Amino acid sequence: MLIKDIGGEFELIKKLTANHLNKTLLKDYKVIKSVGDDCAVIDKGNGNALLVTTDMIVEEDHFSLRWQTPYQVGKKLMEVNVSDIVSMAGIPKLAFISIALKHDTTVEFMEELYQGLNDSAKIHNVIIIGGDTTHGKDYCLNLTLIGECKIDDVRYRKGAKLNDLICVTGKLGASTAGLNLLRRESGLNNKKIDINQFNNVLLKHKEPISRLVNEGTIIGKFVNAMIDVSDGLSSEVKHICNESDVGAEIKKELIPIDQETIKAAEILDMDVYDFALSGGEDFEIVFTIQEKNIEQLRKEFDDFTIVGKILDKSQGTLLIDGNEKILLGKGYNHFN
Amino acid sequence: MLIKDIGGEFELIKKLTANHLNKTLLKDYKVIKSVGDDCAVIDKGNGNALLVTTDMIVEEDHFSLRWQTPYQVGKKLMEVNVSDIVSMAGIPKLAFISIALKHDTTVEFMEELYQGLNDSAKIHNVIIIGGDTTHGKDYCLNLTLIGECKIDDVRYRKGAKLNDLICVTGKLGASTAGLNLLRRESGLNNKKIDINQFNNVLLKHKEPISRLVNEGTIIGKFVNAMIDVSDGLSSEVKHICNESDVGAEIKKELIPIDQETIKAAEILDMDVYDFALSGGEDFEIVFTIQEKNIEQLRKEFDDFTIVGKILDKSQGTLLIDGNEKILLGKGYNHFN
Repeated sequence: MLIKDIGGEFELIKKLTANHLNKTLLKDYKVIKSVGDDCAVIDKGNGNALLVTTDMIVEEDHFSLRWQTPYQVGKKLMEVNVSDIVSMAGIPKLAFISIALKHDTTVEFMEELYQGLNDSAKIHNVIIIGGDTTHGKDYCLNLTLIGECKIDDVRYRKGAKLNDLICVTGKLGASTAGLNLLRRESGLNNKKIDINQFNNVLLKHKEPISRLVNEGTIIGKFVNAMIDVSDGLSSEVKHICNESDVGAEIKKELIPIDQETIKAAEILDMDVYDFALSGGEDFEIVFTIQEKNIEQLRKEFDDFTIVGKILDKSQGTLLIDGNEKILLGKGYNHFN
Repeated sequence: MLIKDIGGEFELIKKLTANHLNKTLLKDYKVIKSVGDDCAVIDKGNGNALLVTTDMIVEEDHFSLRWQTPYQVGKKLMEVNVSDIVSMAGIPKLAFISIALKHDTTVEFMEELYQGLNDSAKIHNVIIIGGDTTHGKDYCLNLTLIGECKIDDVRYRKGAKLNDLICVTGKLGASTAGLNLLRRESGLNNKKIDINQFNNVLLKHKEPISRLVNEGTIIGKFVNAMIDVSDGLSSEVKHICNESDVGAEIKKELIPIDQETIKAAEILDMDVYDFALSGGEDFEIVFTIQEKNIEQLRKEFDDFTIVGKILDKSQGTLLIDGNEKILLGKGYNHFN
């Protein structure tokens, strides 16, 4: 049976892991949250939690050396993991890196890769303290990141409440616009379109960055649920709804997209809202917040946009497009 | 510049990580040990340590579906990581798994893989609480394992003392013998040799197992230095010597090798001591212990053999072969 036939990889892993976990063991091991959030959360004692996340990136799937430098690959590996901790309001600390290298990998390649890893680590105060190096036919890199947080300060996908406003930081869709420009560069060249006019959009794909640690902790103080945008706004809002047992509506016209991304979509003849809703890799934060807390948050952090509202579960998870209500589509899921 | 030209991957990673680490940060983050042991060790407070290890296995490098089942691959992934924690006298607890799957991966494959992971996890009381799934051209699997230990009970590569006896658990070389039989199966078939007579040896390669957690903690009570045999006895003894700033001699005739491994080497026309010294993946434990503690240890655990002695650093790291003294060779190192 193919994985897509049973609902995709998320469902499968959930099932395979559930078979094995039981509540007693989770409690004995002080696991507060296992599979199903951006990080696992473990009770460290004295009111403190450990947050652990792991992300793998594979050549020609998550990055391509045709348009990314080893420096950018290293940076991306660190940023995608930092984003998982930041989006639960945690503080990233310790990184462990596994790398499958090719046989002809040069010292210069590794130096550049580590420069990217180290530069990104420095920004977020992370230190790299262990790992494993091996080899394979394609580059495959994995990073495990351990962070900390007071148990009470951790924010989850669950926790969204009826009538919460749904907000997203920054702008969406740029990374996917950049990827599509890069993939179709030669075709666009033939039409005499120089993709370098979309420099910001390209950089958002080549060198994505996480929101900063202190932004995550500020947001965390005021909100009920949080998640980062790795698979597109649709997918993230649905995760929040599933875990919080609520419904939601997103107003398409409110989704924040910058001009360069809109222009890139026009030239590509693609729907810019597809980029924002299902594109992914923006590494912004989606959060839900009571209306009365919005102004307080805005005093400390204001780079966000209200895009919708939490509804009762019975109302479903909807995208409002003018007068139309449609079911919020699925985000990017590898086996669908 | 190629990686082998600057001394291989171990040296390179050490250099690249050292550039980035500084002692103040390590202290602030309560890192007791970073790169250079089987696990990183972090001060968790109240005299307790967290042990963290991560290992990546890649198709056709660390395993092959030509002769291993998905069940065995899953089991191996867990066992190699458990071995890293056990060989520092720690107790493995929480696992995080990243998998790059192929596009045509079936549900049955995943079920079998997870059955192997879960069965092995159960033996060692590990729970799998998180991970990442993505895809690639080859299977690439990474596991990060977190364990615990009293800070004072952790054993390191460093700590070996002059005149300590060097011991190794179990027998060595079987896994490499098994790998060579599998690689040359068709050639051996032509000579009418049925490799299935070497069932134990084959299984040691297909389904390697870690020493048990309680064996590791018992050994830990009596010894000065410990390491697991992932790259061959030579390499592991040299790691102990480097980290402990001592020399060593290993007596070739004392190296424990079982009859089936010896017979396999004969049929393969290969040197069985090469398997033990440089083959790797035996996942036994090498330890150094004061002579006066040997009998105490033997009362609680006796599946080990004395193979040599710790010398002063000036005497080097030697293999004694009859009347000959030779420098202990290098273990398996991917880029050499």
